[in-house]
Amino acid sequence: MRDMMAITARPEVISLAGGLPDTSTFPPETFAAEMDRIARNSVAEVLQYGPTEGLESVREQIVGVMAAEGMHVDAIDVTVTTGGQQAIDLVTKALIDPGDILICDAPTYPGAIPTFCSYEADVIQIECDDDGMRIDLLEETLAELAAQGRRPKFIYSVPTFQNPGGVTLSLERRRRLVEIARENEILVVEDNPYGLLRYEGESLPTLYSLDGGAYVVYLGTFSKILSAGLRIGWVVSPTPIREKVVLGKGAADLCTSTLTQEFAAQYFRTQKWRDYVEDLIGIYRARRDAMIGAMSEYFPHGATWTKPEGGLFVWATMPEVINTEDLLAKALTKSVAFVPGTSAYVDGRGSHSMRLNFSGVTEERIIEGIRRIGEAAQEQMFLYETMTSEMQLPRIEDPDDPPGGTR
Amino acid sequence: MRDMMAITARPEVISLAGGLPDTSTFPPETFAAEMDRIARNSVAEVLQYGPTEGLESVREQIVGVMAAEGMHVDAIDVTVTTGGQQAIDLVTKALIDPGDILICDAPTYPGAIPTFCSYEADVIQIECDDDGMRIDLLEETLAELAAQGRRPKFIYSVPTFQNPGGVTLSLERRRRLVEIARENEILVVEDNPYGLLRYEGESLPTLYSLDGGAYVVYLGTFSKILSAGLRIGWVVSPTPIREKVVLGKGAADLCTSTLTQEFAAQYFRTQKWRDYVEDLIGIYRARRDAMIGAMSEYFPHGATWTKPEGGLFVWATMPEVINTEDLLAKALTKSVAFVPGTSAYVDGRGSHSMRLNFSGVTEERIIEGIRRIGEAAQEQMFLYETMTSEMQLPRIEDPDDPPGGTR
Repeated sequence: MRDMMAITARPEVISLAGGLPDTSTFPPETFAAEMDRIARNSVAEVLQYGPTEGLESVREQIVGVMAAEGMHVDAIDVTVTTGGQQAIDLVTKALIDPGDILICDAPTYPGAIPTFCSYEADVIQIECDDDGMRIDLLEETLAELAAQGRRPKFIYSVPTFQNPGGVTLSLERRRRLVEIARENEILVVEDNPYGLLRYEGESLPTLYSLDGGAYVVYLGTFSKILSAGLRIGWVVSPTPIREKVVLGKGAADLCTSTLTQEFAAQYFRTQKWRDYVEDLIGIYRARRDAMIGAMSEYFPHGATWTKPEGGLFVWATMPEVINTEDLLAKALTKSVAFVPGTSAYVDGRGSHSMRLNFSGVTEERIIEGIRRIGEAAQEQMFLYETMTSEMQLPRIEDPDDPPGGTR
Repeated sequence: MRDMMAITARPEVISLAGGLPDTSTFPPETFAAEMDRIARNSVAEVLQYGPTEGLESVREQIVGVMAAEGMHVDAIDVTVTTGGQQAIDLVTKALIDPGDILICDAPTYPGAIPTFCSYEADVIQIECDDDGMRIDLLEETLAELAAQGRRPKFIYSVPTFQNPGGVTLSLERRRRLVEIARENEILVVEDNPYGLLRYEGESLPTLYSLDGGAYVVYLGTFSKILSAGLRIGWVVSPTPIREKVVLGKGAADLCTSTLTQEFAAQYFRTQKWRDYVEDLIGIYRARRDAMIGAMSEYFPHGATWTKPEGGLFVWATMPEVINTEDLLAKALTKSVAFVPGTSAYVDGRGSHSMRLNFSGVTEERIIEGIRRIGEAAQEQMFLYETMTSEMQLPRIEDPDDPPGGTR
């Protein structure tokens, strides 16, 4: 991810690699007005340390943002974190001892993998299809583990507009997942950075709202509805976990920036924040459509991809002769970047897949980027076909069953 | 520490517990001017993710701030962190496996202990006196460890205006510590949040400047010379460690707030930041003097304390009949708080000592706070004397040999 971020910074590169929101349309006058208010009222406070669990003002606004997605929480149960990444880190730190089992989507958020590994979790990934994590396979896995006398510490999932798959867990599966959590007394960590960014279809209830917070720990962030540069995320969790998360946060960074917290608290209190989210939805919907359209035009026969109803990502799977790490190397020579699929697995799977971001790049550049990736893929396929016809190599069998529809 | 922060937030409490800088004199017009510049030039950038290792603009300013303390570093070797606390966390994460030995001051920074423990370091604390860590005892410890075939992963120290002791490592000991590091190929982690806050005496070279960065990893922060609310610290380290720190940071929080980084970069580029530090020095010197004066007046006979030449803290040790955790409970009923000494040790030592902060509270309140602590101490001593004379309890023998001069 870091290398991808470094590549992103090179202006000549069309990066479909990051998970960058578009910040270009945030009104500078809104920024100036909020900062002016801080300059007049609270400079000494925003330059000072704040409580480890976060400012009360921002926790109250988080309650409001969650209510917009149908969740009813108490501000006392909210812990502010330094972005959604720290929310994942602190929950993992609180719950995992080395060797503990952690279940997550296959593919899963690539940025979570180094975190899970840093706490030496034993990660089991459950295959996703177009309706998200296959709960039937989850049940099989839990039964197998139970037969060995083992059970996971938690199940981590991005059920809505999944990163990296773009898929959304169906309502039926949501209900069943929450039931399983209750029946087996297993925590589910619901990571929901994108829920408010829906471009079509009907909203589904979050796992948290179905469960009421008994077995679901909820992770949120302002990164995709306001700003990633503020680094404000949060955890909603039952008290015993919250206490461990807050202790962990104290050891990790004492507190999240008071300045950015106060900015966010004011923004959600005083601005029509839903209007800004609506603006983003319009921008991202058009970019998603541009990406899907360009893939139909430029990607090779046999490629498949997901059709996300929201969020920031499409997951594409190339014909099995294409290894996407090799493809990335070729794509970079054409100044275009994506995240190779292996980044989303702990076990080397995903080698024919890739994550493509459509939120951070203009439609024109998305189309050009997809065209170049398609060109690189065609070159690789041509090379492979030339080699196999000359050398009579056997075709590689692929055990992967990636999510997504077919072309 | 967290409880102390919660107490700090109650306005009726005189908190000598935190490590809060005074932010009340930071000019609102300076804040407004810098934010206005951002509003005009870089809103989209400051709301976006930044590189994991930090913005180049802020790393360049860090080079300048370190040059003001006689250190010459390359911006490429600087990793920006979410405050100095994260610098400690990430370096510990990079270097420590469970059971590894880590050496630090006795007493040590209380906020480092949960971090060291979270990575399951085997912490050995080396006694300090008025000249900082006793290097003769360090050498003995290293020899004992070597005899067992063991050696520490690193030596963590705050050599200048130590937290919590307020003491400063002498030049002779600095030179010897750096030699020991070279001879034994052991890393020294120099944590230097307060170096620029000297109220009297001559500046001493940092360990980093004596060593040149071969065996010294340097931790810095803007928390005490600009703002703790920005959450900007940094690590300067050799490349192999830097790479591990950056990987760890990606897993921990992706990047530090771009907004607060850009604010800091601009501030150090455009403002007379040394003038603001001079203002703080004037304020803190007067507060230190007020605290030391009040201790002479109100603390019981037999109490001792350090006489810091800079920084934020005095370390006081009460007569051996006083347990400072009990004393804190009594002090809180009088609405005054401090950090009990046991927080600065891994092994329960420090039970007669306390850390007192003088930077975050006005002189008037410092004097009143010390008066109340003195009153609480006198009450405890009276109670003890009454009990021992009635019940003929033996006096407790105290093995502690705390730093600091006598009354």
